[in-house]
Amino acid sequence: MSLRNVTKQLGSLFLVLSSLLLVTGGWSAIQFLLGDASESRALGALLISGIIGALLGATMWAIGPSQTRSVHRREALLLVAISWLLGAALAGLPYFTWAYLLDADATHAFHSPVNCYFEAMSGLTTTGATILSGIEEIPRSILLWRAMTHWLGGLGIIVLFVAVLPSLGVGGKKLFQIEAPGPAPEGVHPHIRETARILWFIYFGLTVAQIIALRLAGMNWFNSVCHTFATLATGGFSTQDASLGGFNSTAVDLIVIFFMILAGVNFGLYYQLIRRRLHGIWRDSEFRLYLALLGGGSLVVILSLLGHNIVTTSGGMHEPSVGESIRHGLFTTISIQTTTGFCTADFDQWPVLARIVLILLMFVGGSAGSTGGGVKVIRVLVAFKVMIAEIERVFRPNVVRPIKLANATISPEVKLGTIAYVFGVLFLMAAGTCLILMIEPAEKIDFASASTACLATICTIGPGLAKVGAVENYAWFTDASKLILSLLMALGRLEVFAIMVLFLPRFWRGN
Amino acid sequence: MSLRNVTKQLGSLFLVLSSLLLVTGGWSAIQFLLGDASESRALGALLISGIIGALLGATMWAIGPSQTRSVHRREALLLVAISWLLGAALAGLPYFTWAYLLDADATHAFHSPVNCYFEAMSGLTTTGATILSGIEEIPRSILLWRAMTHWLGGLGIIVLFVAVLPSLGVGGKKLFQIEAPGPAPEGVHPHIRETARILWFIYFGLTVAQIIALRLAGMNWFNSVCHTFATLATGGFSTQDASLGGFNSTAVDLIVIFFMILAGVNFGLYYQLIRRRLHGIWRDSEFRLYLALLGGGSLVVILSLLGHNIVTTSGGMHEPSVGESIRHGLFTTISIQTTTGFCTADFDQWPVLARIVLILLMFVGGSAGSTGGGVKVIRVLVAFKVMIAEIERVFRPNVVRPIKLANATISPEVKLGTIAYVFGVLFLMAAGTCLILMIEPAEKIDFASASTACLATICTIGPGLAKVGAVENYAWFTDASKLILSLLMALGRLEVFAIMVLFLPRFWRGN
Repeated sequence: MSLRNVTKQLGSLFLVLSSLLLVTGGWSAIQFLLGDASESRALGALLISGIIGALLGATMWAIGPSQTRSVHRREALLLVAISWLLGAALAGLPYFTWAYLLDADATHAFHSPVNCYFEAMSGLTTTGATILSGIEEIPRSILLWRAMTHWLGGLGIIVLFVAVLPSLGVGGKKLFQIEAPGPAPEGVHPHIRETARILWFIYFGLTVAQIIALRLAGMNWFNSVCHTFATLATGGFSTQDASLGGFNSTAVDLIVIFFMILAGVNFGLYYQLIRRRLHGIWRDSEFRLYLALLGGGSLVVILSLLGHNIVTTSGGMHEPSVGESIRHGLFTTISIQTTTGFCTADFDQWPVLARIVLILLMFVGGSAGSTGGGVKVIRVLVAFKVMIAEIERVFRPNVVRPIKLANATISPEVKLGTIAYVFGVLFLMAAGTCLILMIEPAEKIDFASASTACLATICTIGPGLAKVGAVENYAWFTDASKLILSLLMALGRLEVFAIMVLFLPRFWRGN
Repeated sequence: MSLRNVTKQLGSLFLVLSSLLLVTGGWSAIQFLLGDASESRALGALLISGIIGALLGATMWAIGPSQTRSVHRREALLLVAISWLLGAALAGLPYFTWAYLLDADATHAFHSPVNCYFEAMSGLTTTGATILSGIEEIPRSILLWRAMTHWLGGLGIIVLFVAVLPSLGVGGKKLFQIEAPGPAPEGVHPHIRETARILWFIYFGLTVAQIIALRLAGMNWFNSVCHTFATLATGGFSTQDASLGGFNSTAVDLIVIFFMILAGVNFGLYYQLIRRRLHGIWRDSEFRLYLALLGGGSLVVILSLLGHNIVTTSGGMHEPSVGESIRHGLFTTISIQTTTGFCTADFDQWPVLARIVLILLMFVGGSAGSTGGGVKVIRVLVAFKVMIAEIERVFRPNVVRPIKLANATISPEVKLGTIAYVFGVLFLMAAGTCLILMIEPAEKIDFASASTACLATICTIGPGLAKVGAVENYAWFTDASKLILSLLMALGRLEVFAIMVLFLPRFWRGN
């Protein structure tokens, strides 16, 4: 493994992030010149961070080998893991710099480097868990950068999981290739670079479409852009404490619902759509189960909400009209299952049945090859089929019934890998919960807060229940817990094993 | 599948249970004649239940086919499941009859048939979860029968899993045979009947030894017998509300600790001990991990208890002396991991770290082929090795590293079966928790009580945390929850899949 090669690639990532920081800084400068005085320090923070990042990136690029060679598997894995772990440090730098420039009394949440790292990791992993309250008081350019981390993270994940990793043949990715293959296996665009370009185009197209739709629904351009970034990445950062509920607009809710659903679909399917292979899309069993879960989950949540008072995120208590129940039930269920985490209502106060359905859907998450998190719909499907087959094996030990997806038989390795993955997520969630219960003072923490905080981070949702519920935030955790939750976000985003290899001594040894 | 054949075998089980009910009735008659007036109704209840059971058993036996033929696999599975599900109904009959004869005001917990079924299932599955308070006021013959259900259940499980099921070649049992094979595969005693006889002899020998030891430590014969039954079955029913803590005797604690550890060992190892194959025992990796977990777990719990006040189950608050911490920490950890569930102290009030260790050990449980519950030490070992191998596969997709146990390579089917089993237990636990959270009124239930009640029943421990903690009981649940918990006990005791096959339509269809 060549660490120098990894350093060089990381340098190029830093250069990309830095140029985007500087672009955001440019927008901040325009706002400042147009009369927004609060932008002065934000402008400074963005420029300083951009310059530091660019210098670091250039140095790392220079350290790297002069001749670019192809990246080996282990180098690629290390690069992926380190991109998120170190990328979050750079992405969080403007938060810290801005708070540092702001005042000397150190009351703002961004005065803590751990908070800044948590927020940046939450952005890049498209989680949307925040340590902020009083979001409206933060300069708009900082909020734009915060939304942009979502958008970049979402783009990175799609390119990684649809274009890069499958062509490296990395383990569990074989499962994703069986159904809804990305463009590459089709033989039309054999190069990763070309595949990535198509995905980028699709992602960009959806972004433009949603920005325009939100603008037409009455949002201003700034909010349209920020919420579009957070929607398509299934992130969930908003520009206000009340999240999307603050706009209190049915049109906005419906537009966001539509694009959240799109963001949770395997982006390989959009390629098929472009090629007009509509039949193949409908035959995709993950896609059908994804829609069925969204529909069925919403229905149960809506029914359980009927006649139950709804407290919105902006604080108002709504009469339990059928329309209100449908609107909030539908929005919340889809926001949760796609792992976006936008809120219009405080679902922590909803009936037990609704909360249970939401917790289960958090765990399931979006489709493979989408920006959504969770264990992914296709894994739940395979795990369910494997469990049925295992029960049958008790009374028919010699019958091996093949498990099929899209007419292809799933290999024993993929079966084992899928169950092991689901088990691994549960294990990490349990481990995180235990650690947080031990770290936090007993009077501050309860089991529901600790466990749903871990669930909401490893599945990249954002809000959980109780003290990390829809109207709460993550600021009250101690630094140690925040770092654990940051690690869970990275683990969940990079499909767990891509980070866990780093803890295996064998990974670091020679061939 | 011949249901008549199953009915016949079930009839013979009913006849065995009934004769033991009548034997207990005989003991009750002696106590009554010796002047214990409270036995009059208990005597009636035991005789009535014994006669009803005998009549039912004889009828089922008569319905069966006249020619006895060997039992097929599906018949065996159905028989195993139905033995516990219906056996608990017969075993609970004397409780109900006694309460019915007792008075008309219906205040006793045993006036509810569901309570009686729960208590009997808790006995036969060696769980030890009780719906009783004021245990001391119940006639001794009823308590003896209650302890006997533990002993019978424990014996049934050992015979089933060491002798019967492996010779049927049933699925997951292959795993258990790799290490510490029971007597049968040795070729010395090829018949199930003979193997079962050896196991019965070992179990009986341990029973006599513990009864004598407890008697020498100062317990009376009645308490010695009852607590021995509950120890060797890793059950946990006591004859008093304060559980074993009520005796407040270090000697008793040490004796029970010793026999709890023995009860959690694969009984196949005792066969090897009889054959003087000491080397093979120590090479058994499940045995070593079992001892390591008991030792390591106890150490962590004891250390976390130092300087922390201990509330005993008899209500006293103890000064935090080192000796006290060691005694209660050791006893509780071993009681929990072996899934016995005897209590000397209210561990629900212990530090978070201690409670987390106890919860994890509850999940692990005893060894395969022991009377202990949980997912079994060997499965945890295999699952851990599989997870490491899966992580390695991410960067070495083409390397298949064989996972070995006792120098034998584990087949892919066993790997998958093991992970699927662990996942299945977690799934059932989660499903049970969700159902109970929905069934119970919101003001009565909390997450810790619901989830640890499910954990403590499916892993056949008994006490959990919060409202099902060491000094609490299960009486406050609604009937629906009690039936769910009863089903979880049966599921956990019969290794999950043996019950779940009943829910699979294919199981009931023709060949």
